[in-house]
Amino acid sequence: MSRRELHLNVNTLNSGFYGSAWRAPGADPAAFIDVRHYVRVAQVAERGTFDAIFLADVPSFADRPEHRPFQALEPTIVLAHVAAATEHLGLIGTASTSYNHPYNLARRFASLDLASGGRVGWNIVTTADPAASRNFGADALEAHATRYERAAEFAQVVTALWDSWEDDALVADKASGRFIDTAKVHAIHHSGRYFRVEGPLNVPRSSQGRPVLVQAGGSADGQALAARTAEAIFSVAHSKADALAFAQAIRSQARAFGRSGDDIVILPGLGTIIGSTEAEARRREEELWELMPGDYGLRRVAGILRVDPASLDLDSPLPDVPRPSDGMQTFFDALVSAARRDKLTVRQLIRQFGGSTGHRVVVGTPEQIADDIEDWFRTGAADGFNLMPDVLPDGLEVFVDHVVPLLRRRGIFRTHYQGRTLRGHFGLEVPQSRFAASTCTPAAANA
Amino acid sequence: MSRRELHLNVNTLNSGFYGSAWRAPGADPAAFIDVRHYVRVAQVAERGTFDAIFLADVPSFADRPEHRPFQALEPTIVLAHVAAATEHLGLIGTASTSYNHPYNLARRFASLDLASGGRVGWNIVTTADPAASRNFGADALEAHATRYERAAEFAQVVTALWDSWEDDALVADKASGRFIDTAKVHAIHHSGRYFRVEGPLNVPRSSQGRPVLVQAGGSADGQALAARTAEAIFSVAHSKADALAFAQAIRSQARAFGRSGDDIVILPGLGTIIGSTEAEARRREEELWELMPGDYGLRRVAGILRVDPASLDLDSPLPDVPRPSDGMQTFFDALVSAARRDKLTVRQLIRQFGGSTGHRVVVGTPEQIADDIEDWFRTGAADGFNLMPDVLPDGLEVFVDHVVPLLRRRGIFRTHYQGRTLRGHFGLEVPQSRFAASTCTPAAANA
Repeated sequence: MSRRELHLNVNTLNSGFYGSAWRAPGADPAAFIDVRHYVRVAQVAERGTFDAIFLADVPSFADRPEHRPFQALEPTIVLAHVAAATEHLGLIGTASTSYNHPYNLARRFASLDLASGGRVGWNIVTTADPAASRNFGADALEAHATRYERAAEFAQVVTALWDSWEDDALVADKASGRFIDTAKVHAIHHSGRYFRVEGPLNVPRSSQGRPVLVQAGGSADGQALAARTAEAIFSVAHSKADALAFAQAIRSQARAFGRSGDDIVILPGLGTIIGSTEAEARRREEELWELMPGDYGLRRVAGILRVDPASLDLDSPLPDVPRPSDGMQTFFDALVSAARRDKLTVRQLIRQFGGSTGHRVVVGTPEQIADDIEDWFRTGAADGFNLMPDVLPDGLEVFVDHVVPLLRRRGIFRTHYQGRTLRGHFGLEVPQSRFAASTCTPAAANA
Repeated sequence: MSRRELHLNVNTLNSGFYGSAWRAPGADPAAFIDVRHYVRVAQVAERGTFDAIFLADVPSFADRPEHRPFQALEPTIVLAHVAAATEHLGLIGTASTSYNHPYNLARRFASLDLASGGRVGWNIVTTADPAASRNFGADALEAHATRYERAAEFAQVVTALWDSWEDDALVADKASGRFIDTAKVHAIHHSGRYFRVEGPLNVPRSSQGRPVLVQAGGSADGQALAARTAEAIFSVAHSKADALAFAQAIRSQARAFGRSGDDIVILPGLGTIIGSTEAEARRREEELWELMPGDYGLRRVAGILRVDPASLDLDSPLPDVPRPSDGMQTFFDALVSAARRDKLTVRQLIRQFGGSTGHRVVVGTPEQIADDIEDWFRTGAADGFNLMPDVLPDGLEVFVDHVVPLLRRRGIFRTHYQGRTLRGHFGLEVPQSRFAASTCTPAAANA
């Protein structure tokens, strides 16, 4: 990258990050199952020259649906609709390595990547949700380490499949009748602990080579997977110091895996509640808090802590809680460390985290939001942000209309797209196929 | 159905059914990886008030790709783009019961069904392709009967998941803060020989209730699966007598499963090569034959027969060939019976089947095509056709502009869409959720 440039990704979380977003004035409460809602949000993001739109996902019906929307529509189906309605915006979808097969996943993302002209990213998750495991024939989650070991092999198979066509394998020459040069399409002969996959994939590479690998787990296993495979990371950080430490740790682990580390795009989560004055922003937050349904906040916090909601005394400090060994450690750590650091009662903790996703939230004017973003960006705490507006689409519209112009004026954010691929937006190189121009041996696929 | 009405589905086969379609004048040889090609074809089909567009599929790189296009892009990704660009056309995608998990498949198709306003069908296949099995950890295909047993259980799980939301489970009431009535979203508690799936699905039902189940296998196992589960059938028939016998057999088997049988929509495959005179149509066929690359025809026929191409003597009658036990029996039977009935040499057999898909082909004027269609339809040999134009999009454009008007004038085909769902086009009822208005017991899901 010649000049360092801010990256912005919008994480829709359906109606927006705030737990009561679907009840906000103007919000369509059934937007979460309306593909036009996601298309509208994406078009606003593209107007704001965002890098990408991102959809989280869990393949189960489990996240307190009685109180708020969840990712119901399968992400690649939504992103295909978004692809059809946009030209530049990156499209990042979540898919689980625990509940998919690598050939299917590689093919689906490669298909979307071709269809969108090279705009796709895959957010690699292992899915720490017991309800999901019961939808796929298991009685319980696999151990955390096992899930991540499988994920690492899964990602290895997927990238090998994405490389299986050399870029000039498709001949399609009407005159000679030669369609494909099959010598340039390679089996991958993968045989590992979790998967045996012969290949090749039946989809050629896109103009960005292959989809961007994105990762979000902040646990030790998650960080190791990210350092080994991720090209972009969605992180959780509540302070610049934490963010800097995380970035340093990831980049140095990446170097240990033989990577440069510097080109990994690290995007901490950032919730935004914006008003034209600070008081107005606070009022907006207050109104969203008032709309929080029932005991949602208490149950959300208890859920992250993995304790019975009834065991928590609202007006006492947070009791000692054992750290879960099998998932969602990132949000657990963020919540417990905030409680300790700021000496919060359970009630205060709920007020701070109950409406949110566990990510940092900034409440203020466009100037204040822009100041915060610029500060984190210039100090190297962030390469950009995984932005979560409070309510969609209007929380994003306000950001695009009032914060983006400030970021542009300050010279840290693009005024127009320079390319059309997600790799291009992220400043990532197009990776050569591992088989390209090779006297390739099958073993290469397992390298 | 008050008045019986013809149904038309276009089976794209990428560039068209003819093996050399991609080399035809005007054809884009790389159309098979361009989602805009499928969108264009779909828009022509919608202009012609077709019931649906259909994509076949095999998850491998195996079907002589050196000579012709194949289904590279994953069908639901393509159909999502088609959904975004059309309003009425049904969208039927193939997905394998051998290489998917029912929760993922149910969710992906349900998502597309919601996104398209209830226009989706799932073509259930077991995938008789050894290369596919090697992409999914197996050394060989499962036995034919095992594949179909798994398919039957798979379809049972998928439909139970599609029923898991009652139609009024989504409350989304902003005033009360009640989002979902979780008492109306049901676990399915499936525990069978091949799958254990707890459910519920995390996607509500669409306006057509659930996607239409489509089936194509003509083997005894395939017919049994179709009779038990299919709402529409893509069949292979080279004569009206065969088609009538097939329809009778399916409908009577369906009755043995407790179904009415009469509402199953049976659509024999029909390839078309159209000219403004019969001579012109023949010339078009001749030109396509001349463009057939290399020994593609010989290899295609040998592939269906499962024999070494070198073992066939072009100028002798077809030798005795053992019927394969593990798949593709339908096309084997069609080919061998044509060879015996018409006493064809191998060369003649290749001329007849080598360029085609194994389905019946009619070559002629729009009048002749319309006569054939009307004849099969009125005698009950077909409820409609799975149409395969020779070259796309122009083979379909000619059909829509010149054959469809004749069918309309003869009063057997719609002049405009009456509804917006695939079930509506096919004259199928919207199925009630098995859990609706029930004091439902979990056992119902395995009924």
